[in-house]
Amino acid sequence: MKRTSIVFIFVGTTVILATALIGVLLYMRNQPAPQRGIQPLVEIAQYEPDSSKWGLNFPNQYSTFLLTKDNKAKTPFGGSEPYSKLESDPRLVTLFAGMAFSIDYNEERGHMNSLTDVRETKRVNEKTPGTCYSCKTANNPSLWDQMGAEEYFKTPFVKLGEKIDQPIGCANCHEANTMRLIVTNPALEEALKEQGKDWRTFTRQEMRTVVCANCHVEYYFKGEGKYLTFPWRLGVSADNIADYYNEIGFKDWDHKISGAPLIKIQHPEYELYTNNSTHYRAGVACADCHMPYVRDGAAKFSSHDVKSPLLAPERSCGTCHTDVTYVVDRVSQIQKQVREVMDVAIEALIEAIGAIEKAAQDPNANPDLLNEARQLHREAQLRVDFINAENSMGFHNPEEALRVLAKATDLARQAQLKAIQASNLVIQASK
Amino acid sequence: MKRTSIVFIFVGTTVILATALIGVLLYMRNQPAPQRGIQPLVEIAQYEPDSSKWGLNFPNQYSTFLLTKDNKAKTPFGGSEPYSKLESDPRLVTLFAGMAFSIDYNEERGHMNSLTDVRETKRVNEKTPGTCYSCKTANNPSLWDQMGAEEYFKTPFVKLGEKIDQPIGCANCHEANTMRLIVTNPALEEALKEQGKDWRTFTRQEMRTVVCANCHVEYYFKGEGKYLTFPWRLGVSADNIADYYNEIGFKDWDHKISGAPLIKIQHPEYELYTNNSTHYRAGVACADCHMPYVRDGAAKFSSHDVKSPLLAPERSCGTCHTDVTYVVDRVSQIQKQVREVMDVAIEALIEAIGAIEKAAQDPNANPDLLNEARQLHREAQLRVDFINAENSMGFHNPEEALRVLAKATDLARQAQLKAIQASNLVIQASK
Repeated sequence: MKRTSIVFIFVGTTVILATALIGVLLYMRNQPAPQRGIQPLVEIAQYEPDSSKWGLNFPNQYSTFLLTKDNKAKTPFGGSEPYSKLESDPRLVTLFAGMAFSIDYNEERGHMNSLTDVRETKRVNEKTPGTCYSCKTANNPSLWDQMGAEEYFKTPFVKLGEKIDQPIGCANCHEANTMRLIVTNPALEEALKEQGKDWRTFTRQEMRTVVCANCHVEYYFKGEGKYLTFPWRLGVSADNIADYYNEIGFKDWDHKISGAPLIKIQHPEYELYTNNSTHYRAGVACADCHMPYVRDGAAKFSSHDVKSPLLAPERSCGTCHTDVTYVVDRVSQIQKQVREVMDVAIEALIEAIGAIEKAAQDPNANPDLLNEARQLHREAQLRVDFINAENSMGFHNPEEALRVLAKATDLARQAQLKAIQASNLVIQASK
Repeated sequence: MKRTSIVFIFVGTTVILATALIGVLLYMRNQPAPQRGIQPLVEIAQYEPDSSKWGLNFPNQYSTFLLTKDNKAKTPFGGSEPYSKLESDPRLVTLFAGMAFSIDYNEERGHMNSLTDVRETKRVNEKTPGTCYSCKTANNPSLWDQMGAEEYFKTPFVKLGEKIDQPIGCANCHEANTMRLIVTNPALEEALKEQGKDWRTFTRQEMRTVVCANCHVEYYFKGEGKYLTFPWRLGVSADNIADYYNEIGFKDWDHKISGAPLIKIQHPEYELYTNNSTHYRAGVACADCHMPYVRDGAAKFSSHDVKSPLLAPERSCGTCHTDVTYVVDRVSQIQKQVREVMDVAIEALIEAIGAIEKAAQDPNANPDLLNEARQLHREAQLRVDFINAENSMGFHNPEEALRVLAKATDLARQAQLKAIQASNLVIQASK
């Protein structure tokens, strides 16, 4: 071959390859940036309940999520070890006398155990409505879509259970095709709407808090249809929620000893945290502390092993706070203070219950004063329970937790005083 | 003149001047660095009471100190405006019934007004001991040196006053020749010693907190000699101090309505702040917030216009916190919560006092239970007063302030219950 031919072939090939490369680059410029995991390996169906399928596209998130099955480490005031709250504080049996929480009340475990635990608790029986599955399974978004929320809630727990096979999972907080964070619980959608808020307008950082409110909130079952409802119309503080329940005349049960119409408060983490807590005001989201960023080689992702920040403080607190030892010590100090004040409040409640019991045994006791005492028992217990059922021993909002407990103590002692007055007024009058 | 001569003279002069300059520089290298103000313009005598003389050497510190005469700006819960606390909260007249604070109780003014204000208060009379001057004048270090502390404290207030002509000033916290911070109050020296501490070993940053304890502490007058004493042997928390006073069987006065033997708590800023508060644990000194650094040209100095950080938050908070608006809002939020809880506690105390009064009027009331009620009144009021007399509306240590107030509320309600029991037990027995 002639030397000129070789040169010609070489130059020609180079030109063709270069043109092709430029073409490819120009084409790629108009494509979305290829991000790890956003280009799916497999297609995920809308509302897909099975998290293992999502896990094919998101192995880091999924593999950390699987750790929630066994993240049993105990923190000074919680963690994910399933100890019995009733055994560790027998006073709770008195506080919840006459309702299911006096029979079975365990520290919650990680997300992967939600389905097992709700099926095993002694609080569930043949009368339990399907509503109790609302926070327990990734089958929900699909079921709410198929059945409609109203139908779902009024289906009996046992019957609804036939359609359910997944614990909490990806579908509870993510949209399949976009992976964006979404509100899936209809009760949350409605509660936000009532406050004039539309989560679709929220920033990603706001969503990193709001999606937790799919479950970590106080709620009740409205009417005969047991429709899941959040009591937020008047606001999210313990005082607001107490006022709301008084306004609608709701009670969960009558206390077996005092006869007071009581409310059982459920894990109001979102309410306590977002009510002017210092971290919330500083722009910190739930996920910042409970799902800190971790690395897998060059990839940074949010750990889905959702748990107490005290189990990984370097990651959770260390992102903002330079001295982690100092910070952990502060948390411990604050939690001890809240525990001490809560103990004072519980003691006061126990004595109030005893005083009402005694006054109620007096056939001549003044019924109006006795009712006032019961109303005060209701107000006090709702507030103690607001902080006791909230999973942070007050740390999500220390000053507010202490304020609520101080008020609860005062109300419990007033209940005790009214009960004594109810019975003694008669004694004085009959002198 | 020949050209070579001119060159010779020039070179010779240069060599001589350069040698002289090098000599001067070498000499200066061995001298202490000339610092602004450390090389005194005038000599200050040991214990010099007159701050204006110190002011010649330290015009920046002195001129800012003079501002304390008029720093009257009001903050939401304090500041330096001399309003009457009794007029703004008439419940305090009931709380302090039978003692001088029920007659005259004003918000304190800036340091420069200390002498005028102590001489004008209606709480001072011919029986007042000299001890009351302990925190009011820069004449003290010199007087304690000349007279000895024991003699000083037992001299009557009016007589001691003849030797006193200065308000609080430089000599209360500084040593004249070195300007280092020193403890001058013998009661503080002794209280620290009792805790096994020697302030002479403290760092400068520690001294920037401890010198404030020369005055901003709870104290009492011990024995006939009215010896100024800090009740810190068991610790500095409200609980520790209550235990201490119980142990030594001390009371300031008998409450006019309930008859309880009470303690009047005085401005325990140092105790509340250093008891594990978040700022103290983070290494922040009193002076960091209340005497922030300011500039005069190239000189940086600590402002001696000691006042609320809320009156200059950019300087005081802004040194550490990037978002000052956020921080000021947090302070306001916390102070409102503390105020609310304090109001609950005061209401409970007022009702307790009323109940004890009523029970005491019953000639058949059980005297043991009545005494228990009075003891509970004492315990509750000491704690409410600990937070009320402390000048920060709880902000110096929010969680601790709320803990103490919650406990106070519980104790006040228990006092009320005991009083009712004291009187009704008899009624029941006589049925």
